[in-house]
Amino acid sequence: MTQPNSFSYQKLFSHAAAEPRPLGAARRGKYDFAVAYPDPASLPLDDLVSSLQPALIEEGRDLAVYGHIQGYRPLREWIANKLARDRAIHVGADDIVLGDGSGQPIHMLIETLVDPGDVLITEDFVYSGTLQQMRRFRADIRGVACDGEGMLPAVLEQVIQQAISEGKPPQFIYTVPTFHNPQGWTMSLARRKAMVALAQQYDVPILEDDCYWDLRYDGGDVPSLHALDGTGRVIYVSSFSKVIAPGMRLGYMTAPPDLLARAVAAKSGGSVNTFAAFAVHRYATGHLNSHIEEINDIQRTKRDAMLAALDEYFGPQGATWSHPQGGLFIWLQLAEGVDVAAIRDKVLETADVGYLPGNNFAPDGIAGKNRLRLCFGYNTPEEIGEGIARLAAAFREEGVLG
Amino acid sequence: MTQPNSFSYQKLFSHAAAEPRPLGAARRGKYDFAVAYPDPASLPLDDLVSSLQPALIEEGRDLAVYGHIQGYRPLREWIANKLARDRAIHVGADDIVLGDGSGQPIHMLIETLVDPGDVLITEDFVYSGTLQQMRRFRADIRGVACDGEGMLPAVLEQVIQQAISEGKPPQFIYTVPTFHNPQGWTMSLARRKAMVALAQQYDVPILEDDCYWDLRYDGGDVPSLHALDGTGRVIYVSSFSKVIAPGMRLGYMTAPPDLLARAVAAKSGGSVNTFAAFAVHRYATGHLNSHIEEINDIQRTKRDAMLAALDEYFGPQGATWSHPQGGLFIWLQLAEGVDVAAIRDKVLETADVGYLPGNNFAPDGIAGKNRLRLCFGYNTPEEIGEGIARLAAAFREEGVLG
Repeated sequence: MTQPNSFSYQKLFSHAAAEPRPLGAARRGKYDFAVAYPDPASLPLDDLVSSLQPALIEEGRDLAVYGHIQGYRPLREWIANKLARDRAIHVGADDIVLGDGSGQPIHMLIETLVDPGDVLITEDFVYSGTLQQMRRFRADIRGVACDGEGMLPAVLEQVIQQAISEGKPPQFIYTVPTFHNPQGWTMSLARRKAMVALAQQYDVPILEDDCYWDLRYDGGDVPSLHALDGTGRVIYVSSFSKVIAPGMRLGYMTAPPDLLARAVAAKSGGSVNTFAAFAVHRYATGHLNSHIEEINDIQRTKRDAMLAALDEYFGPQGATWSHPQGGLFIWLQLAEGVDVAAIRDKVLETADVGYLPGNNFAPDGIAGKNRLRLCFGYNTPEEIGEGIARLAAAFREEGVLG
Repeated sequence: MTQPNSFSYQKLFSHAAAEPRPLGAARRGKYDFAVAYPDPASLPLDDLVSSLQPALIEEGRDLAVYGHIQGYRPLREWIANKLARDRAIHVGADDIVLGDGSGQPIHMLIETLVDPGDVLITEDFVYSGTLQQMRRFRADIRGVACDGEGMLPAVLEQVIQQAISEGKPPQFIYTVPTFHNPQGWTMSLARRKAMVALAQQYDVPILEDDCYWDLRYDGGDVPSLHALDGTGRVIYVSSFSKVIAPGMRLGYMTAPPDLLARAVAAKSGGSVNTFAAFAVHRYATGHLNSHIEEINDIQRTKRDAMLAALDEYFGPQGATWSHPQGGLFIWLQLAEGVDVAAIRDKVLETADVGYLPGNNFAPDGIAGKNRLRLCFGYNTPEEIGEGIARLAAAFREEGVLG
């Protein structure tokens, strides 16, 4: 008799297999500034259902068939119109692929463009989900120092030249130019022009992650990198996660045809969820613009609540933080040498406040332990005020705040 | 000035990049026997919406958060109960991962277990979607000859021994044991026991793809390979695509913890679609058993219509075909030497009948051009009769049927 589960798969894993992922559910704080969630009270649940019903009457039979690999075409057409209207990006539905959030298109793209050791360039601190995919495909990730307007062009050029001199010209530059995750700044027009010029000069594509663009609370718009380029060097991704809900799992990418045909072939699971795409398409057509206005009013209030609380509890202590014109993130910097990574679990336990330490966003996973990302989307303004007060108290207790 | 889209990505593709995928929409015949669709007239559209509504009232706020990577837990619990009840597979919700159809879990698993050149074993003709993933990760795919009860055990053992003698012990055996795609047979209990015994003897895991199990029209049940093993060597995948709808994009896999933790890390796009999972969970709890009884009555009639039409139009001509007890497929074999692959597009054009030639299901992509897979799920019984008559006429015209 063999023993139950006596077999080990250890010797069978491929060289390209992803490292094991811890499968426990992450503990969340009552004051949950850790993850980029939208306001749960203003999710358009009723409107999603009432949008879904006519779609099922009109096209429900098509749930019986396997959809096109690029996803439900009417939603791709809606996106093409939106991109033209909002971002001066002129592409057709055939140039767009839908994915499970923006994460799946980013994954497809990295898999398509990255061999182990290939150089990728990004900000000195950037969205950790993309970093995880870059690491998984064993990229050599190089961060570029930023100020409050984005990457410093001279540093970016130096990093590109260095990689070229090593015989490893960068595969692409990844950037979140608008309401940056986690740093909160928006890349200025001058910086965008400089980045596009360098991309053209050194023949390096750009992956523009514009997931937060719709969430502007004040200030004026800045053109997309895609619109400033016009040579096919800019790949553009965005998502409905922040303007409708993450649980709808709908994002999208547009890229030139030669790249798209290969990235799409790396897509896992066939067409994106048609049931959800029906609801999002009808909802976007009828309701999305007014919904965005509504949630931006709510999130502006939340941002202001967090900024006011930071002024009150962190201001006198030598800490600094970003003042975002939109998005979901404030980037808080404490004194050099303190470590908020080491005390994260303890603060979550004792103060019930969640945050992500800066090193989560560092290409090397180490830098930035005196920084943290605070998301203001999930809690109410009152909870945000309380949570920041509790965070300051916990930090003082742990000796990381004066 | 640079030219629009003057940039070529050609030099940037990774060695592991998937081959480009043709992005045009495939033409479908009026008589569409080509793809495994369920009956479009009996999709439970109203019940899905009425199942979704209470879920959104109870848990809709959770759409604001990023779900667990393994997917909506109550649906995983429902699946664990179903697997215990129907297949004597005793696992917990933590042992299950939801994916976009069964295709995504299969993709994750192949990526996790296959290096270029690794040997995988499967039937001599098998589901083309899995073959595509195997090819993408450059597996050395070896087919095992089958009769009407599945792989011939002596041939399977020989293929295993051959691979071992080459220093390439097989990474796993992939099989669709119940209502086989495309061959239509169901593996007998004796064959299942023999396959499990060989897997244990030679230490080769089995990937059991049981997507059609619920669709039984007559005959008695046969135990799952998973239940016959009990050593952790059998990985099990299934899906809601055939019992609810492909457009819901919900499938699942259970595997031992060491393998699951790595396969899940290869998952693209985060948690499976929560919006669709809400609807499927509530629908499965309240309606699925009676729905399956209803669609099985419908599909039994369709199968019988196709078998009767084959008797009438192909019977006198020396063709042979499978008589499935369930599922969606009939496997039709014409005389040796004829080629139905070469005339597929023409038959689709002239007769408006779609089918997939046998070589689509061959590990080498070449064998089986005198065979074809006919799916009876989509058309009405009357259309099935007409379609088979048209197919026979077209085949006679092309000289492939006497």
